[in-house]
Amino acid sequence: MTFTLRELAERVGGAVEGDGALVVARLMPLEEAGPSDLSFFANKKYRHAFEASRAGAVLVEPDEAVPSGRTVLRVKNAYLAFAKVATLFHPPAQAVPFAAEQAFIHPSAHVDPSAELMPFAFVGADAVVGPRCILYPGAYVGEGARLGADCVLWPNAVVRDRCRLGERVVLEPGCVVGSDGFGFAFDPEGEAGSGPRHYKVPQTGTVVVEDDVELGANTCVDRGTLGVTRIGRGVKIDNLVQVAHNVEIGPLSILVSQVGISGSSKLGAGVVAAGQVGVVGHVEIGAGAKLLAQSGVTNDVPAGEMVLGSPARSRGLALRIEATLSRLPELAKRVRELEKKLAELEAVPR
Amino acid sequence: MTFTLRELAERVGGAVEGDGALVVARLMPLEEAGPSDLSFFANKKYRHAFEASRAGAVLVEPDEAVPSGRTVLRVKNAYLAFAKVATLFHPPAQAVPFAAEQAFIHPSAHVDPSAELMPFAFVGADAVVGPRCILYPGAYVGEGARLGADCVLWPNAVVRDRCRLGERVVLEPGCVVGSDGFGFAFDPEGEAGSGPRHYKVPQTGTVVVEDDVELGANTCVDRGTLGVTRIGRGVKIDNLVQVAHNVEIGPLSILVSQVGISGSSKLGAGVVAAGQVGVVGHVEIGAGAKLLAQSGVTNDVPAGEMVLGSPARSRGLALRIEATLSRLPELAKRVRELEKKLAELEAVPR
Amino acid sequence: MTFTLRELAERVGGAVEGDGALVVARLMPLEEAGPSDLSFFANKKYRHAFEASRAGAVLVEPDEAVPSGRTVLRVKNAYLAFAKVATLFHPPAQAVPFAAEQAFIHPSAHVDPSAELMPFAFVGADAVVGPRCILYPGAYVGEGARLGADCVLWPNAVVRDRCRLGERVVLEPGCVVGSDGFGFAFDPEGEAGSGPRHYKVPQTGTVVVEDDVELGANTCVDRGTLGVTRIGRGVKIDNLVQVAHNVEIGPLSILVSQVGISGSSKLGAGVVAAGQVGVVGHVEIGAGAKLLAQSGVTNDVPAGEMVLGSPARSRGLALRIEATLSRLPELAKRVRELEKKLAELEAVPR
Repeated sequence: MTFTLRELAERVGGAVEGDGALVVARLMPLEEAGPSDLSFFANKKYRHAFEASRAGAVLVEPDEAVPSGRTVLRVKNAYLAFAKVATLFHPPAQAVPFAAEQAFIHPSAHVDPSAELMPFAFVGADAVVGPRCILYPGAYVGEGARLGADCVLWPNAVVRDRCRLGERVVLEPGCVVGSDGFGFAFDPEGEAGSGPRHYKVPQTGTVVVEDDVELGANTCVDRGTLGVTRIGRGVKIDNLVQVAHNVEIGPLSILVSQVGISGSSKLGAGVVAAGQVGVVGHVEIGAGAKLLAQSGVTNDVPAGEMVLGSPARSRGLALRIEATLSRLPELAKRVRELEKKLAELEAVPR
Repeated sequence: MTFTLRELAERVGGAVEGDGALVVARLMPLEEAGPSDLSFFANKKYRHAFEASRAGAVLVEPDEAVPSGRTVLRVKNAYLAFAKVATLFHPPAQAVPFAAEQAFIHPSAHVDPSAELMPFAFVGADAVVGPRCILYPGAYVGEGARLGADCVLWPNAVVRDRCRLGERVVLEPGCVVGSDGFGFAFDPEGEAGSGPRHYKVPQTGTVVVEDDVELGANTCVDRGTLGVTRIGRGVKIDNLVQVAHNVEIGPLSILVSQVGISGSSKLGAGVVAAGQVGVVGHVEIGAGAKLLAQSGVTNDVPAGEMVLGSPARSRGLALRIEATLSRLPELAKRVRELEKKLAELEAVPR
Repeated sequence: MTFTLRELAERVGGAVEGDGALVVARLMPLEEAGPSDLSFFANKKYRHAFEASRAGAVLVEPDEAVPSGRTVLRVKNAYLAFAKVATLFHPPAQAVPFAAEQAFIHPSAHVDPSAELMPFAFVGADAVVGPRCILYPGAYVGEGARLGADCVLWPNAVVRDRCRLGERVVLEPGCVVGSDGFGFAFDPEGEAGSGPRHYKVPQTGTVVVEDDVELGANTCVDRGTLGVTRIGRGVKIDNLVQVAHNVEIGPLSILVSQVGISGSSKLGAGVVAAGQVGVVGHVEIGAGAKLLAQSGVTNDVPAGEMVLGSPARSRGLALRIEATLSRLPELAKRVRELEKKLAELEAVPR
């Protein structure tokens, strides 16, 4: 599949500067692109690579200076345009209507005939698999679970009983939706005085995953204790993330790898939690808040706020603390010095 | 299934105040409960929700004030009573004696006829699966592994060769028991002088998981290098936790999501490690110690102690440091001010 | 299988002191070893256990004092020698040439006849499985993926489409190679003005895992957005680690459990990242750098440097800061004291 640069400009919006008839055969990174490749320049850190690139054409944003003689496609958002061009070159896989003999479909399940079920995929009793879903080997759809249209369950992805996925939901390999929430009540006596134990709280709720959500590899979303754990529309979650029981993640939020959200916390719309962030239970994170990497969030965060550190503080204060910390050993020395000088002054007879 | 409030009081202990004849059909959260639902009020943070609730009855603890006219069931521990009532309404799934044709059972394995093996479950050579165990699709029981009675392996849970589970052990989806410990000896020369390499230390030990343990989704417990990694009776471990080779977790300990315990460390009975805690190797954590969220534990922790921070310090000191840190930039300014004033004083001719 | 101590000395290098004719039947930890067992003493922390041990013989390093009458095998590196002896006693499992009827092999795949495919293993179209590979149940080799000789995919390990493993690569259970990178471009308008969305950036690259790599249980390695994510020769990665798209890990590096490396970062040769370390995207970590546990690396790290803390600083500075922090509340008190005294001094009429 090839496109001229002019065709691409029409498809993704933007203006060609230079050779619009260039036939683009591939998308490549700036460093590796050749004369018939298109590349993109979206992160200013890579200006040098842009200038040195042999790419036939490059997606650039309106304010970028371009060396003379270079062909570029000016677009409002180079990364978004790159994503759209890449989708033209690599359209997402389409389901091949098919159920492998080695798949298991419970007689009471309803699997749309346009879905694709590979060997060792499992669909339990009363489950529903919508049109054009793809279930890779080892994918598991539990009893009474429901998948909307165009969902993809990569190998060994699990949707436990009664949980629901909307449309176009993607679960990367090993992702688990609907595992039991972590709820135990300490019972100091135990059954018939048998001694202390942790009494399991039945996790009778479910998970609702709304449309256009993507959940990363080996990420876990626990079911509600009562009621639901909800992943809002268009949320994107990276690998190895933990979402505990009864959490609500607002639409379009982003959770980066290894984030953990504890039970019953609520994230508003468009929250971003960077890598390895932890959020305690029963707090509210306002819409558009940004939780910076490795933060430990112990309290509510107002909408739009950026927080940092463990415990998390407003970003401004956290950065001032960090800057002072680097000089802390020296500060301690200065205090000692002050004490010495002051003692000398005090010793002067007046 | 329904119960009168009076019946529930008899089953879980406690005293009805109000309408003991109320027929309870469901357990619901305070906010969503209606006139024929039972709810519970266990976290003081939710007093407002309790007061506003339309629940027919609520489980409350002895010291709680109750608005007049409300029906409550007074119990010693509302969360525990809730758990017990929820278990009456939702008894745990029972194994349906059955081995799917699409399951694999090695001829030398012993699977109790009361066990339930779903399609794509695997039981290796010489393995033992006890009475009433449930193996979901993709569950794997390796060569010579042994499961006691009433274990549940959710989809894609793995018990590698020779590891042993006690009775009533639950592995959530994707949980791995018995993966190789992370042991490599640096070999500066390599085989026949082929250059440096990390030489793998054979991980010949196993894992022993005692009775009533629950391990979370995608949690990993490595086998011992020599000897065993041991998860004590009644331990509950959340999702995405790492337990390294030769670790010992004392009975009734709690490990919250994304905790990591490094090799050969020993946790006493009833230790609680909150979310994202890390513990280095070869240390001892005394019984009942509490490791607060995101702590990095680099040394032994005495029994009963609470620690916090990275590196972890006693909670009291850590909280004092945190409080001072928030004023650190201001403290630095005050030291500059002191230096200035002192210089002025010193400059005064005496 | 048994060896005399003298035979072991020949096999692994080293000199017997004491009874070279001792027949060794097992390797055991110092505390559990008996008179016909060999043990090892490699961590000085365990000197007491060494002195109290009943082991028939112990591997010790050249400079260790040995109580008189004890039989030891002196070796340059006790842990490495232990690993080599353990390998003699427990040689790695060999593939039994076999493809289970219940495995799935696509007609266009090439599986070497010496490989072992257990039930529920899956090999997709055009995939290649090299000589003597072992695929455990639930192992998945996607379309066009290639495994070199002697690879082991433990249960439910996943190699997605077009990714490549070198020779002797081991994937522990649940490990995922080639999941989609986490790349989304924010699209403020959405399709036909349907509102904001995160537009998925097609992840069209792959993963290259070089020879002698071992990846831990439930570890995730994302494919490149364009180009590859590369895990260098001899790298060892522990459980639950996240390696994002387009990361490069230099040969012989070590990533301990729950580490996360963000997109496009490059680690040189022999880097060590300890448990729960996080590295931001687009940075370079020089060869031989050591990232200490729970560090948050936000910038390039020079070769050979040790860093610590979140944000990570050079180890020396970080340790000085930590030491001062423990005295921070007291330091604040001293500053208050100074202010008081200075005010008194200033009040003195001069």
